[in-house]
Amino acid sequence: MPSLVIVGTVALDNIRTPFGEVHSALGGSAFYAGLSASYWTDVGVMAIVGEDYPEEGFRLLERHGVDSRGIARSREKTFSWTGEYTFDLNTAHTLKTDLNCLLSFNPDLPAIYDRPDTLFLANIDPDIQLRVLDSLPVRPALVVCDTMNFWIENKLAELKRVLARIDILTINEGEARMLSGEFSLVHAARKIVGMGPKTLVVKRGEYGVLVFGKEGIFASPAYPLEEVKDPTGAGDSFAGGFIGYMARNRKSTDEILRQGIVIGSAMASFCVEDFSTRGLEGLSKTVISDRLASFSTLTSYPDLPPLDAGMKG
Amino acid sequence: MPSLVIVGTVALDNIRTPFGEVHSALGGSAFYAGLSASYWTDVGVMAIVGEDYPEEGFRLLERHGVDSRGIARSREKTFSWTGEYTFDLNTAHTLKTDLNCLLSFNPDLPAIYDRPDTLFLANIDPDIQLRVLDSLPVRPALVVCDTMNFWIENKLAELKRVLARIDILTINEGEARMLSGEFSLVHAARKIVGMGPKTLVVKRGEYGVLVFGKEGIFASPAYPLEEVKDPTGAGDSFAGGFIGYMARNRKSTDEILRQGIVIGSAMASFCVEDFSTRGLEGLSKTVISDRLASFSTLTSYPDLPPLDAGMKG
Repeated sequence: MPSLVIVGTVALDNIRTPFGEVHSALGGSAFYAGLSASYWTDVGVMAIVGEDYPEEGFRLLERHGVDSRGIARSREKTFSWTGEYTFDLNTAHTLKTDLNCLLSFNPDLPAIYDRPDTLFLANIDPDIQLRVLDSLPVRPALVVCDTMNFWIENKLAELKRVLARIDILTINEGEARMLSGEFSLVHAARKIVGMGPKTLVVKRGEYGVLVFGKEGIFASPAYPLEEVKDPTGAGDSFAGGFIGYMARNRKSTDEILRQGIVIGSAMASFCVEDFSTRGLEGLSKTVISDRLASFSTLTSYPDLPPLDAGMKG
Repeated sequence: MPSLVIVGTVALDNIRTPFGEVHSALGGSAFYAGLSASYWTDVGVMAIVGEDYPEEGFRLLERHGVDSRGIARSREKTFSWTGEYTFDLNTAHTLKTDLNCLLSFNPDLPAIYDRPDTLFLANIDPDIQLRVLDSLPVRPALVVCDTMNFWIENKLAELKRVLARIDILTINEGEARMLSGEFSLVHAARKIVGMGPKTLVVKRGEYGVLVFGKEGIFASPAYPLEEVKDPTGAGDSFAGGFIGYMARNRKSTDEILRQGIVIGSAMASFCVEDFSTRGLEGLSKTVISDRLASFSTLTSYPDLPPLDAGMKG
């Protein structure tokens, strides 16, 4: 039985960036997060795909040991996102969203996965997130949720009911400001923590991540890459690595959380190096280990001397 | 004799932010950098002020032990910058620049300060930066330079002659892209290092600093403050603290450089907490020490376990 269950989307994406384009490419919040988490813990995915979904997607999950019994098949078409990025790769411009089979998604988690320790409600309609939470006979030890501006604008009441029942929220910087009505992220975090989650993870794209928790603030940079080819799925890959590591360790101490954030950042850095999920596929331990070592070098500095020695006069 | 000499502007600024406004407030690149550096080493400033410049500015420098013998007095008016910030405090909107006495600034460094170890050419006309370099009988052990988009656009040839003769360049993210013609900061850094400086320090406002040096990349976040009241001078305060610490230690190892970057980031965090230079004035060792400890907590995480223990399977 998987220790981590991820509920979200599996999609076929059309993406254009200054470095190329792909059509009907494997994607979706649960798909990216599942692949990323698969390097760290046993994962099961709950999602829905249409009759046009290629077997290739299932085979990819299988090769990474992801349990896909929770992926329902519909007679409609698969959910599809069409978007593009200009040179400012921080901002995705949505050209088209075809919900398709997502409209009939009605996940019955307990019917497939028995009492996961950790639940990740990836970006999807808050009504579905609520239904999943309601369906669980036992609350998982750790519940993490992601969302996006669309739900903050259109389903705020439902989203707030989700927030009251989770441990960690991961959203991007603009969404944190939108959800809280505060410009200062420190003020925004205080308001959002007041809505329920004990910890707020603010994703800032190429600038990394800021985490507001009970034990203070943690800042983790994004890895400065030679080239970012396709940022799609970076946030989901981050969340997958982060939560996968938390699930693996079965505890939510500040230490494990910080390590998890760095691991999530490393997984996101692999994701954006290639289109669709290619950058996340078949990573060796050596490659991951080297990237994690680079992260450590990126932020570490020698302890500062006591100020009387270091300062003038 | 000061170990660090800073050549740049002393100004009277008019600043408006969503949190208030000030008129004829103490400012200028050399003024902010000098105050900030004064906590770490002996500093002398080379600049020019007009007949309207208040004695208060000199008294403030004196209280911080800054040698102001290099500040010439002109019969014209003091250089003045008028600008505003909206809620996006990362971007300054220049409303007016009155060069005034700056047009007749002709610093004779060797006449005032004898052979400083460290020279900071703060943001000013590259022709003046060149003239200062030409005037020195002995090249300082460490030469750091700052510049801005205006000089990249209007005096690129002169700026490139400066770059060929310095050790470290500090500029902001947009300027690094403008100067290199590269969007990826990793590519931009490689090009800029090819122009002369061994180390490139990229300032990213509220996202902190990325340093590209011989020994790899170092990322330091900005301190997440409750409220930023006035970002004016943040970059100069950062540079002052950074270079002041380097001058204090009289060596440019990767370790000292990383520590200096964190100290510069801390000094910048004080600067932006209040208008003009108020946030930088009269800081106690305890206050600085506490902020530096917060920086360490902000970025540190426990060593990751070896991957075979941390990864699945």
